[in-house]
Amino acid sequence: MAQKPVCVEDFEQIAKQILSKPVYDYYRSGAGNQQTLADNVSAFSRWTLNPRVLRDVSVLDTSTTVLGQRISMPICVAPTAMQRMAHPAGETATVRACRSQGTGMILSTWATSSIEEVAEAAPDAVRWLQLYIYKDREVTKSLVLRAEQAGFKGIFLTVDTPYLGRRFDDVRNRFKLPPHLSMKNFKSFDLAFSKSGYGEDSGLAVYVAESIDPSIKWEDISWLKSVTSLPIVAKGILRADDARKAVQCGVDGILVSNHGARQLDGVSATIEALPEIIEATEGKVEVFLDGGVRNGADALKALALGARAVFVGRPAVWGLAYKGEEGVHEVLQILKDEFRLAMALSGCSNVEEIDKSLVRRNPWPFSKL
Amino acid sequence: MAQKPVCVEDFEQIAKQILSKPVYDYYRSGAGNQQTLADNVSAFSRWTLNPRVLRDVSVLDTSTTVLGQRISMPICVAPTAMQRMAHPAGETATVRACRSQGTGMILSTWATSSIEEVAEAAPDAVRWLQLYIYKDREVTKSLVLRAEQAGFKGIFLTVDTPYLGRRFDDVRNRFKLPPHLSMKNFKSFDLAFSKSGYGEDSGLAVYVAESIDPSIKWEDISWLKSVTSLPIVAKGILRADDARKAVQCGVDGILVSNHGARQLDGVSATIEALPEIIEATEGKVEVFLDGGVRNGADALKALALGARAVFVGRPAVWGLAYKGEEGVHEVLQILKDEFRLAMALSGCSNVEEIDKSLVRRNPWPFSKL
Amino acid sequence: MAQKPVCVEDFEQIAKQILSKPVYDYYRSGAGNQQTLADNVSAFSRWTLNPRVLRDVSVLDTSTTVLGQRISMPICVAPTAMQRMAHPAGETATVRACRSQGTGMILSTWATSSIEEVAEAAPDAVRWLQLYIYKDREVTKSLVLRAEQAGFKGIFLTVDTPYLGRRFDDVRNRFKLPPHLSMKNFKSFDLAFSKSGYGEDSGLAVYVAESIDPSIKWEDISWLKSVTSLPIVAKGILRADDARKAVQCGVDGILVSNHGARQLDGVSATIEALPEIIEATEGKVEVFLDGGVRNGADALKALALGARAVFVGRPAVWGLAYKGEEGVHEVLQILKDEFRLAMALSGCSNVEEIDKSLVRRNPWPFSKL
Amino acid sequence: MAQKPVCVEDFEQIAKQILSKPVYDYYRSGAGNQQTLADNVSAFSRWTLNPRVLRDVSVLDTSTTVLGQRISMPICVAPTAMQRMAHPAGETATVRACRSQGTGMILSTWATSSIEEVAEAAPDAVRWLQLYIYKDREVTKSLVLRAEQAGFKGIFLTVDTPYLGRRFDDVRNRFKLPPHLSMKNFKSFDLAFSKSGYGEDSGLAVYVAESIDPSIKWEDISWLKSVTSLPIVAKGILRADDARKAVQCGVDGILVSNHGARQLDGVSATIEALPEIIEATEGKVEVFLDGGVRNGADALKALALGARAVFVGRPAVWGLAYKGEEGVHEVLQILKDEFRLAMALSGCSNVEEIDKSLVRRNPWPFSKL
Repeated sequence: MAQKPVCVEDFEQIAKQILSKPVYDYYRSGAGNQQTLADNVSAFSRWTLNPRVLRDVSVLDTSTTVLGQRISMPICVAPTAMQRMAHPAGETATVRACRSQGTGMILSTWATSSIEEVAEAAPDAVRWLQLYIYKDREVTKSLVLRAEQAGFKGIFLTVDTPYLGRRFDDVRNRFKLPPHLSMKNFKSFDLAFSKSGYGEDSGLAVYVAESIDPSIKWEDISWLKSVTSLPIVAKGILRADDARKAVQCGVDGILVSNHGARQLDGVSATIEALPEIIEATEGKVEVFLDGGVRNGADALKALALGARAVFVGRPAVWGLAYKGEEGVHEVLQILKDEFRLAMALSGCSNVEEIDKSLVRRNPWPFSKL
Repeated sequence: MAQKPVCVEDFEQIAKQILSKPVYDYYRSGAGNQQTLADNVSAFSRWTLNPRVLRDVSVLDTSTTVLGQRISMPICVAPTAMQRMAHPAGETATVRACRSQGTGMILSTWATSSIEEVAEAAPDAVRWLQLYIYKDREVTKSLVLRAEQAGFKGIFLTVDTPYLGRRFDDVRNRFKLPPHLSMKNFKSFDLAFSKSGYGEDSGLAVYVAESIDPSIKWEDISWLKSVTSLPIVAKGILRADDARKAVQCGVDGILVSNHGARQLDGVSATIEALPEIIEATEGKVEVFLDGGVRNGADALKALALGARAVFVGRPAVWGLAYKGEEGVHEVLQILKDEFRLAMALSGCSNVEEIDKSLVRRNPWPFSKL
Repeated sequence: MAQKPVCVEDFEQIAKQILSKPVYDYYRSGAGNQQTLADNVSAFSRWTLNPRVLRDVSVLDTSTTVLGQRISMPICVAPTAMQRMAHPAGETATVRACRSQGTGMILSTWATSSIEEVAEAAPDAVRWLQLYIYKDREVTKSLVLRAEQAGFKGIFLTVDTPYLGRRFDDVRNRFKLPPHLSMKNFKSFDLAFSKSGYGEDSGLAVYVAESIDPSIKWEDISWLKSVTSLPIVAKGILRADDARKAVQCGVDGILVSNHGARQLDGVSATIEALPEIIEATEGKVEVFLDGGVRNGADALKALALGARAVFVGRPAVWGLAYKGEEGVHEVLQILKDEFRLAMALSGCSNVEEIDKSLVRRNPWPFSKL
Repeated sequence: MAQKPVCVEDFEQIAKQILSKPVYDYYRSGAGNQQTLADNVSAFSRWTLNPRVLRDVSVLDTSTTVLGQRISMPICVAPTAMQRMAHPAGETATVRACRSQGTGMILSTWATSSIEEVAEAAPDAVRWLQLYIYKDREVTKSLVLRAEQAGFKGIFLTVDTPYLGRRFDDVRNRFKLPPHLSMKNFKSFDLAFSKSGYGEDSGLAVYVAESIDPSIKWEDISWLKSVTSLPIVAKGILRADDARKAVQCGVDGILVSNHGARQLDGVSATIEALPEIIEATEGKVEVFLDGGVRNGADALKALALGARAVFVGRPAVWGLAYKGEEGVHEVLQILKDEFRLAMALSGCSNVEEIDKSLVRRNPWPFSKL
């Protein structure tokens, strides 16, 4: 495909040709039979848009705020691990693209660029840190403090990964990092995912079993709050009762996520789980969504259902594989243009005008063309 | 396919072979991922016919009226732009076919034949004008006055296009008019869509951004009424509240339309939106539908759900590409024959006997054969 | 496929190889886009069987009665036209197979064997006549009287064919009878479907337009009752109100049928229409079903929903094409074996024990394997 | 596929290459059109997991009890017949794999290893006997007594097989045992399924018609209880009323089963039937499920819906074909790992914590990837 990509799906096709199979597989895969992987995307088509007409949409403002930070659009970049596998500049390219687009990025704990490198690459970008809680709490605490130091604006605490989900391709590929890369936030070979062998399994699954704390519980949110004054978002909540508990524990936000369908296959598409989380949280905290967002209209639907913003993971990686910073920039530009157009064609001049009446359940699944 | 076409789908197959790729793509495409494009068609199969038997159907009358004009069947031709791309005679062929079939045609503002040429081609045909409101209101007003002068019988005001929908193929093809054609209702290169270049985008999207007024609002219906005494139909309404507003603003009709699925992907199929529009308008104005009508039984279903008439866009274009006036005539003949047969096999002698009981929701999606 | 066929679908595959394309197309086709054709079959899979266990099923009796005639199983042969196109012995082979299986056959008005030939071929078979009402009522009356004379046991009056449905393949094939065959119940070339040409249309559609009465109405049932004392079944009813009218008009039975999906595409699958007809008729008349029955479990479902018996059309034709009388016999044997087994595995020793609790709506469409 | 299998589906692909067609067909096939065969599997995807987060899952215990016997996980091996067709060691390999995994196995009456051979192969394994009731009650009684003698811990009485279901491939293949094998629990050629010919039908269907009692009824449970003091489980119940009857008859458990979709095509997927059986039995007996379980999350769903344990049939056979005892061991290991992970990612430390809130009905069918 020599043609300029015109939609997110085009970027994936290009990336598939550029990336090695184990790397492409790593980014693309979902857990198990990948039902949730497919469903995350297709679930958006089960909500119909219900546009208003004849409202003056000559002036359009797509900006909003997330955790108090103003961003140019309610579409930010989700944390994806080890981005230097996709492009030599990795996370530093991604953060620069976010900055130039005026939107925010969540950096993965498992980045192949350190917290400090990313901060330095784009000092004035809106940056947040995704956090895994390690068995070694000092290591964990240190990540948080370094992020705070480096001007990150919040912590997205992953709550759905006491163990790593089983991703068949990674098992088949015995996935591990290429030798020239490491998880740059860590020094030791072990924590940097740089051991020489991980047996017949996905290396990352072994890594998680060895390093990540499977005993984390609601009390650990208090612990995290005792360590930092940054806002904390619980990432990976899918149930109303868990959402209420998170609010009681004092989180500042909830990211409705199924970890890109990479943890437990068979869970709800995130857009299906969103409405009950919105209802359960009663506006007390900001609610976000990731999983399956592939175009601007998807974002519009999520906002109509009550999300404050959405996050895109794989789309940014495909852009990164395509052309580094420029590729991510292009992906975000397309999403921004699509979101602005979807807003306009729905009769909304700004995100405040996006209301629940703009979406409804399909009477039927959409047909394939 | 050397064989004589026997259904609308056959005409599309033939047209696909005749037309150049950018032209075929232009007519065929929907916006975005084209879910609504597919759904417009397949939604009809989600309504089951519920025919009556043993009613004398030896004499059948398919005629009706639209905005006071008598037509031979409740199936008219929707506005599609730039028809001379499909056949040298373009809109003049289409209007002649409508006249010979005794049905009506909506001429597009963006026709490659002028209002006057079309009137002259078929002075006694039932003709209406589709209208875009331009940033230049004098230009807009002049279109309306010329239509009135030329014996057009109503204005179908497009309300869903403050900006053009994103149609991927048109972007990829950098769609523009062939150099020997222009939008014949306009004199200036700019308004006639005849500039030499439109960059890396769909030329038509650029044209709309430059020329069409994105600030149109409900008040503009009053403005339009102040300019003309022709009946006015709001084309592109999909919500009950907007339908009620349109009635309050004094429109004479509503065309339930999603612009052939070319504006905002993900909106309802029109046949799904129709029932609530019928309910909201309480019989105060005529309600029409376009989008996805591919055979006579589709039209019967729309009438059973309350539409006064339906409009077909692409089917007429495929007929035009096939054989000009004769091709459109054939398409309309097939639709008329199918509609008459569907009426008869449902136990209806005329359109007044078509009632709500003739359709019901499927308990399930129809299977593919 | 040299293998012995083990299910009805196998017979169709064989028949497809044996028959000429126009003949195969004629039998196979449904009207229009053939949605109802597919749905007639797949609708059965939307009803789940709910079998009882641990009931003594060592002695099984599949017999029942239809219009007072005892038959070996509640699966009879539906009328299909012009069976000598499928096999030289045509309807005489079919009736012999029905007799040897102990079940009944409806002879088509449009048979290529006369009423008398069929009676002579199997004097002691349970035979009924399917009747079209011709514009010439004397012709019509004569058919009825000949059937009565020849020991036919009832009239199945087709009520859904004031005009012939549009079947694309027949139009494309300009379908007509091979020159050595004719509709044997008629003498004149016109009525015997033996004219030399029928233009560019399906010859049979032209035949119907010329000969069949499109003005038949409820009163004609009274007329028919005045002509014969045979029981009368209205064939082709799909609505509850029409079913009630039929009962009021004094019919002895109703055959829920959509004419093998050959008349108006988009109508309900017959198994979907059955429950409301059962409810509407309140047990006052016998209710039958045809359309989509392909195995014994389908028949069991129809009986559980209230049908007294079902009729199979195409399956018999495929058997006929395969091996004449022996082929139809094999098809009926398979259906009988399947029905007996389905009864046994549902815990029923005889048809009286088949009750409503044996079927329920699927929570979901069945998946394809 | 030289690669190590990573999921149950991989084992089937390998087995398909290893086994002869009639043997593979025998194991794979379902009855009739195999709708229930497909549905047994896909029905699991119609229940969405609804995982809890932030619960300490550092210590995981997957063990449970079945009929009082402790097993390492709530996934046991269902009875499948004639396992030496799949591997020379047959049932003795399977029972050894179960023992080494700490789980239980139901031995088929129709095993190619005798009750005593299986007991000897794994004296300390948890073993149960699946029982068909033969016309010859002495034979039947003897099977039960031998099982009791050999340390089997319960009888799973098949209640859904008065006749054998019609499996097209077995008919086409005229399925019978290879000459070097026999049903080892029997001495006579007839009962050992070792006659030289069974005609043009599935040999096994003939065998059942000749030997198995089609008159068994609820009273036979009392008879069975009079013969043995082992716990009795009714295998093959799909209706609430039958479940209540079974409880009244004094069974110790119910196995919700459709015989691997091999008896009556069109019945419910077992996971669809489970909830009403759970409701009907009111906790008075243990309820189990087989049919369609292909991974650990399926088992979790069944437990969440109320099953005490699930049984896998074909997966064990595929493992057996692959590598005998080692292959079955691998399959069970994968299922155990998957189940443990699914439990952990749902926030459950042990099977007691698995509750109804962990599953819910999908709003829509899952999409295929």
